Amino acid sequence: MKVFVLRLGHRPLRDKRITTHVALTARAFGASGFVLAEVHDEGVVRSVRKVCNTWGGSNFKVLTGVEPVSYINEWKNEGGLVIHLTMYGLHVDDLINTLKSINKDLLIVVGAEKVPPVIYELANYNVAIGHQPHSEVSALAVFLDRLFSGRELHFIYSDAKISVVPTEKGKKVIRHD
Amino acid sequence: MKVFVLRLGHRPLRDKRITTHVALTARAFGASGFVLAEVHDEGVVRSVRKVCNTWGGSNFKVLTGVEPVSYINEWKNEGGLVIHLTMYGLHVDDLINTLKSINKDLLIVVGAEKVPPVIYELANYNVAIGHQPHSEVSALAVFLDRLFSGRELHFIYSDAKISVVPTEKGKKVIRHD
Repeated sequence: MKVFVLRLGHRPLRDKRITTHVALTARAFGASGFVLAEVHDEGVVRSVRKVCNTWGGSNFKVLTGVEPVSYINEWKNEGGLVIHLTMYGLHVDDLINTLKSINKDLLIVVGAEKVPPVIYELANYNVAIGHQPHSEVSALAVFLDRLFSGRELHFIYSDAKISVVPTEKGKKVIRHD
Repeated sequence: MKVFVLRLGHRPLRDKRITTHVALTARAFGASGFVLAEVHDEGVVRSVRKVCNTWGGSNFKVLTGVEPVSYINEWKNEGGLVIHLTMYGLHVDDLINTLKSINKDLLIVVGAEKVPPVIYELANYNVAIGHQPHSEVSALAVFLDRLFSGRELHFIYSDAKISVVPTEKGKKVIRHD
């Protein structure tokens, strides 16, 4: 099962850091690719590449400037499923077991403030990580954490140049190069 | 058990949106207060107040311009526990059962890029939401989701003016005023 994250509505000046956090969350929580809709933002790409270069994940895919409706349709045509995270959708607790049992590639769509109605229509599932306003970063993290049952937080990248040695106080890392 | 979130290292120009997402995540995932260290940022406060005004939570506390070391020491002196979320800490899976069984007020500390060493020393627990770099927003959301065993995503604010009616497609809300 391949999981990609599609980020809609990115405004380069305002959202650079939020979008970077979405992409880093995608990588750290077990997705294998991040797709930025409509715009190219070299700052976001550079930040993600820098993390992959140091902490591993050189095969983590990053695409930018993608037309989202075509991308979603193509994903579905190839047999994949599209999940849109929105506080207006059905509660994650009511869907997660169904979603975990589906063995298909998943495209997780997260928006900024306004998501066009067509996205709600095209998504196979509109999933709410609770029905309160919070953050697309939180929503993505909790969704992937539930989807992968927490196993993703133990994943080790074989091409990491450094990795953390868990410690009670301070910072310890091992260098692998 | 009272849970507050303390945000360190906020740079108003760069971090306004990330810090707002941290505060909204704190509110939506069951914390009862948000504390911004060192600076006052009216933009962040306004965004959080606007959400509380519409979606409920008028008693959600927001403090700004707080000196973090004094605040942490005071929290501990009053019998509370301080948990610092950092990728360098011990894995959440190895600590969460202990933390769930402690019936004390919890201060969850999240930083920006650089957190001073004193914070690692003062924290009772340095907890890693996995050992990969991602986002303080993700880390906070997953930590609170684990701490409250997902129950927080069903919480309803009694003073909400509107609330969501979960739906398969589109957006439905009820107005309570």
